[in-house]
Amino acid sequence: MFERLALIGCGLMGGSFALALREAGLVRRVAGFSATAATTERALGLGAIDEIATSVGQAARGADLVLVAVPVAATESTLAALRPHLAPGALAMDVGSTKSDVVAAAERALGERLACFVPAHPIAGKEKSGIGHAEPALYRGCRVILTPLPANPPAQVARARQVWTAIGARVVEMAPQAHDTTFAAVSHLPHLLAFALVDGIVQQDGGDAILALGGPGFRDFTRIAAADPRMWRDVFLANQAQLLAQLQAHREALARFEALILAGDADGLERLIAQASGVRARWQMNSFTPGT
Amino acid sequence: MFERLALIGCGLMGGSFALALREAGLVRRVAGFSATAATTERALGLGAIDEIATSVGQAARGADLVLVAVPVAATESTLAALRPHLAPGALAMDVGSTKSDVVAAAERALGERLACFVPAHPIAGKEKSGIGHAEPALYRGCRVILTPLPANPPAQVARARQVWTAIGARVVEMAPQAHDTTFAAVSHLPHLLAFALVDGIVQQDGGDAILALGGPGFRDFTRIAAADPRMWRDVFLANQAQLLAQLQAHREALARFEALILAGDADGLERLIAQASGVRARWQMNSFTPGT
Repeated sequence: MFERLALIGCGLMGGSFALALREAGLVRRVAGFSATAATTERALGLGAIDEIATSVGQAARGADLVLVAVPVAATESTLAALRPHLAPGALAMDVGSTKSDVVAAAERALGERLACFVPAHPIAGKEKSGIGHAEPALYRGCRVILTPLPANPPAQVARARQVWTAIGARVVEMAPQAHDTTFAAVSHLPHLLAFALVDGIVQQDGGDAILALGGPGFRDFTRIAAADPRMWRDVFLANQAQLLAQLQAHREALARFEALILAGDADGLERLIAQASGVRARWQMNSFTPGT
Repeated sequence: MFERLALIGCGLMGGSFALALREAGLVRRVAGFSATAATTERALGLGAIDEIATSVGQAARGADLVLVAVPVAATESTLAALRPHLAPGALAMDVGSTKSDVVAAAERALGERLACFVPAHPIAGKEKSGIGHAEPALYRGCRVILTPLPANPPAQVARARQVWTAIGARVVEMAPQAHDTTFAAVSHLPHLLAFALVDGIVQQDGGDAILALGGPGFRDFTRIAAADPRMWRDVFLANQAQLLAQLQAHREALARFEALILAGDADGLERLIAQASGVRARWQMNSFTPGT
């Protein structure tokens, strides 16, 4: 049981975390801070927080749990504002989609309080953002990646695991770089491709009429293209090197398909498609077993 | 009311068409032919067809309605086999995902019976194929593209519209080339990108571990990558020119995003993402209104 959660950023991710902790009876009081006053007021109205803090410091004072749920680009300034108010025994986490940059930001910003901070990335979300879409079940059944720091005592990492496990998530530990490679491949690149697919169609003559005839495949493929522009701008810039490396791997894969199509090599094309199709048909979210 | 439907190809598309016509009371008897005997037996067992035909000709004899629901690459040979058995007053249609090649195949194969044939493409389907997944509601609420031939009497096209409308679909008429451009953009290219994304990950060291961490975005983006390899091989080859033209437009869009990421141009990147995100957020399947 935590006495006080400081929720820094009261959007979809932060709001859902607070609601889940309250539902599980894991926190006595929640103080919320947001860069936009209307957001904390909405969070208060929806019962996600108990009190509105007017600064990061005010939210953090007396908090034994801190969740930084701000856009990735705002992580460093938020952590710097947090540092003087963070109790030595507090547990602080983030929810950012990229980790190498968050680790670097924490090392620069947190000084003697670095041991408090366990970087976290819950693999959850919707194409809709904002506190209005928050729900206590958002993290249930999802994975949460922790990328612990050398400075973190094992007990601190264990507490971080416990919090996420208690609200129904499954915790995986990874190194920050492996995390960033993985999510460049399975999340950031798909978002980039979905944005670019829509952009490539819209820029054509008659693009609107073309879009109008998209069916169920188009709908699902481009669902993530409706995601929040500012968040994804930040993710693409924060994870630039890994994203561009994955884009290169994808271009090479595309070139393999293109060469077979141009050559009219039906057998080779079918083999290449069948390999990808077989992998995807066996894949299941949260339960993929390599090699089966 | 049709007396006899000849169903040439008893898979997901053909089986669902027969089931829908029966449910609507639009056909008295259905004869089914398939290249694989087990398929027609299954279709008979599921009530999609009343009798098994052992040849295209046997299925077509006495039929006033013919649906050719075979892989695109088999269209020409199927139509050629159909020609001597096709009654002058019959209505024949296909369900192929590409149309310029089907029109050319029909012109070569059907001779004096060309007027019977109205090329059709229902925008329906699942990532699962086969008669086992057929359902009478598959076409309800979906669009069906007709690309009528100059040889089609207007009354023949009107009958084709009526059949699809009677089972709940909405009919759109297009020229074959416009059809192929449109579906290269909203269907064939997304399939190619989804196959290539999976392939690009699988080919990496540790690709299995990377895939294992895909979340809801990856799941939806790659749903179509589980599609039937033979069908998509045929579609890619049949619509090669339009597909590669759309791939080129997509590459140019990707290059726009990549240049902004490389330059660290946060404002420009946000603008480009916001444009695509806004278009996709407004888009709704079957009800997109350009310019709103």
